[in-house]
Amino acid sequence: MEIVFLGTTAAVPSAARGHSGIALKYHDEVILWDCGEGTQRQLIVSKTNYMKIKKIFITHFHGDHFLGLPGLIQTLSFADRREDLHVYAPKGIKDLIENIMHLGEYGLKYDIVAHTLSDNFELKDEKYTIKSIKVEHSIPTYGLVFEEVKGREFLLDRAKKLGIPPGPAYSKLQKGEKIKLGGKWIYPDDVLGEKKKGFKVVYSSDTRPCGAVIENCRDAVLIHDATFDGSLKNNAIETMHSTCTEAAQVAKEGVAKELYLMHISPRYKTDELLLKESRKIFRNTMVARDLQRVELLHKSL
Amino acid sequence: MEIVFLGTTAAVPSAARGHSGIALKYHDEVILWDCGEGTQRQLIVSKTNYMKIKKIFITHFHGDHFLGLPGLIQTLSFADRREDLHVYAPKGIKDLIENIMHLGEYGLKYDIVAHTLSDNFELKDEKYTIKSIKVEHSIPTYGLVFEEVKGREFLLDRAKKLGIPPGPAYSKLQKGEKIKLGGKWIYPDDVLGEKKKGFKVVYSSDTRPCGAVIENCRDAVLIHDATFDGSLKNNAIETMHSTCTEAAQVAKEGVAKELYLMHISPRYKTDELLLKESRKIFRNTMVARDLQRVELLHKSL
Repeated sequence: MEIVFLGTTAAVPSAARGHSGIALKYHDEVILWDCGEGTQRQLIVSKTNYMKIKKIFITHFHGDHFLGLPGLIQTLSFADRREDLHVYAPKGIKDLIENIMHLGEYGLKYDIVAHTLSDNFELKDEKYTIKSIKVEHSIPTYGLVFEEVKGREFLLDRAKKLGIPPGPAYSKLQKGEKIKLGGKWIYPDDVLGEKKKGFKVVYSSDTRPCGAVIENCRDAVLIHDATFDGSLKNNAIETMHSTCTEAAQVAKEGVAKELYLMHISPRYKTDELLLKESRKIFRNTMVARDLQRVELLHKSL
Repeated sequence: MEIVFLGTTAAVPSAARGHSGIALKYHDEVILWDCGEGTQRQLIVSKTNYMKIKKIFITHFHGDHFLGLPGLIQTLSFADRREDLHVYAPKGIKDLIENIMHLGEYGLKYDIVAHTLSDNFELKDEKYTIKSIKVEHSIPTYGLVFEEVKGREFLLDRAKKLGIPPGPAYSKLQKGEKIKLGGKWIYPDDVLGEKKKGFKVVYSSDTRPCGAVIENCRDAVLIHDATFDGSLKNNAIETMHSTCTEAAQVAKEGVAKELYLMHISPRYKTDELLLKESRKIFRNTMVARDLQRVELLHKSL
């Protein structure tokens, strides 16, 4: 699994940072979290195949998080997309799509299916779930939690000890079915251990530090709003964003695995200050950069 | 005067080229011609002061020419703009602005004034005129002609010969007023020569080669659609664009001063082919590049 940071600025772009966008590459799919202006170009520059995007999540309706949508819809159309495109966003998404469709002539040969995020929304895919969590910003905003669906560990030693022949019997047990061996029932619990840890990625979107993120970021790669440095807490409160130190505190309290600071104000020309301040609180902190790729490996979890 | 190419691609962006946008820097004003997605970032990267934009022209309503407008409007608002913003575009611009205003929450403290381009539209500023010319694309599209307003040359030798004292008398004559000197009338025609040549910049926008551009590009810096190389004329006809050789032919027939090829298909990784083909027809051809600056100097006209 790979995270590709497409845009990491706050509100206004800079030479170094474009508007918000994160691509999650998982197996043969690309999932897009936010789609600020310029996202389609960042997808192209980062060689992320936009035709593999099936689902786009828009965390809230501030322009810097969704104004890349019309252009991306258009470009997918130029590329002759036929497959449905699912867009998940707060209440109002159906109207937004309707408005976007009136902005120009798209000639779409695919459908855009709008889904409304809510406090208890959960998308269940075969291999992963994505749920939305209500965060604290100036307008209704949802953070996002990606979790890989993983089965229980197969305890090979035990299976061998029980004399189970490798092959279909293993599969059945792994799927949760009991098998009969030499007149005796063997149950999944006899050979299955703990649930394996899957990938977990949490995106706070734009928010004040909040419980919903803390409660959900255990063991996760946490991507958190860090618009300001620690000295500008008043600005953060006023604009309903977070400082880098607040983000680090969230990661610490929630026991995240890694923290990537995002939504960085263009006033910061280098990462130095933000890194220094936040690493004092949560050592495993990075400042996300445009086009940065983060590969997640199971062995490291 | 300076031309800044902000985006030069056709339809879909590439790592090298963003969506259409051209900034004309003239005295203390920035005039924007087209505003494709990503234009605000290109303005920032090229250090073009977006607060000095008073007028934006949208040549037609294909997404790659106007989808940067909502984001730019938003960013001008963040920067606390108070001055009216004038937007000139084909029929439908009022509805488009209305739609854009429903896309998000802008909190504007300035007005957007929509103006409709037509076959005989001409904006008359004190120092320049900009007129729109109907070109030949798949939807209603206007090319743009910027012309500096210049007075007649003041013939100093003649004025001295006539014994006119330098100062207010010179000014009056330059403004077209007669003066009395030693009981004799002296008329402007006595001391004024030919009309001075001003800057002229013509932008074809997306079009097949057409008479309107040829008739208007004499002595101008011509920026012309060159989506394809010469071998792909059929594609150009089908999509209502031009090849680089067609663009060069227009520049030649219209007796342009310089030709900048724009709206370049992402299929061309280098400029070589386009340059080679078009320079055979019109020597003074360049392929416009993103963030390229072209300074126009009076002495070279």
